[in-house]
Amino acid sequence: MISRNPPDRIVESCLYADNLDAAEQFYSQLLGLTLVSKVENRHLFYRCGSSMLLIFNAQETLKSHPRVPSHGAHGNGHLAFGVSREVLSEWRKRLPALGIPIESEVTWPGGSQSLYFRDPAGNSLELVEPALWGLPD
Amino acid sequence: MISRNPPDRIVESCLYADNLDAAEQFYSQLLGLTLVSKVENRHLFYRCGSSMLLIFNAQETLKSHPRVPSHGAHGNGHLAFGVSREVLSEWRKRLPALGIPIESEVTWPGGSQSLYFRDPAGNSLELVEPALWGLPD
Repeated sequence: MISRNPPDRIVESCLYADNLDAAEQFYSQLLGLTLVSKVENRHLFYRCGSSMLLIFNAQETLKSHPRVPSHGAHGNGHLAFGVSREVLSEWRKRLPALGIPIESEVTWPGGSQSLYFRDPAGNSLELVEPALWGLPD
Repeated sequence: MISRNPPDRIVESCLYADNLDAAEQFYSQLLGLTLVSKVENRHLFYRCGSSMLLIFNAQETLKSHPRVPSHGAHGNGHLAFGVSREVLSEWRKRLPALGIPIESEVTWPGGSQSLYFRDPAGNSLELVEPALWGLPD
């Protein structure tokens, strides 16, 4: 049975971090994302264009809550930001200048490029040209 | 130091699942997402509007790879799809009809609504009105 209205938009993507202070310094100050909500030791909510990046302390979100179902993962998650080739080139210089090592660079068969690096919690972050997925810039 | 071009688009959001067959049945057949790529026992890549939902078997992605940095988390992740009030109401009926329990429903202070349910791996999925985040429908 195929649903008639499949979801066609992701508005909350999540990563987990034990040290939210380090995460905030990284995502706010280094990446420059806009923090829209914060609860000390529980979460950081960032706006990223037309969606949200939610960074949770799993130790808190795994606790029972009266309304919001528990969740929380351990280990290194993954998330990719879509950027133009020009912006990707800027970040290729800027990340090392900010003290963030570039872990890998990939040029995919179709020519799209990716840069990989880590947040302080070890999550694998990527800057990728959306064309990799056939998505418009 | 605030970056001059902060990322403003998330194009890859990830969840993890040990049983990708169960995940495929759920995301393809029940939710109706469009599968664009699949590697048996490693991943399912779904297109969801202007971004991608990547579902990985962490046991595979934690292995060393020549180009792509390892990642992989265990536990229950979280992701929210943005839907209109009308579509949310349809899913409120459809999820139980598909055998998917609604774990929680929340009406947030501003009036936006959320429905929570689980994928077969236990990830916490949400259908939410984007207005919750001040995002346009």
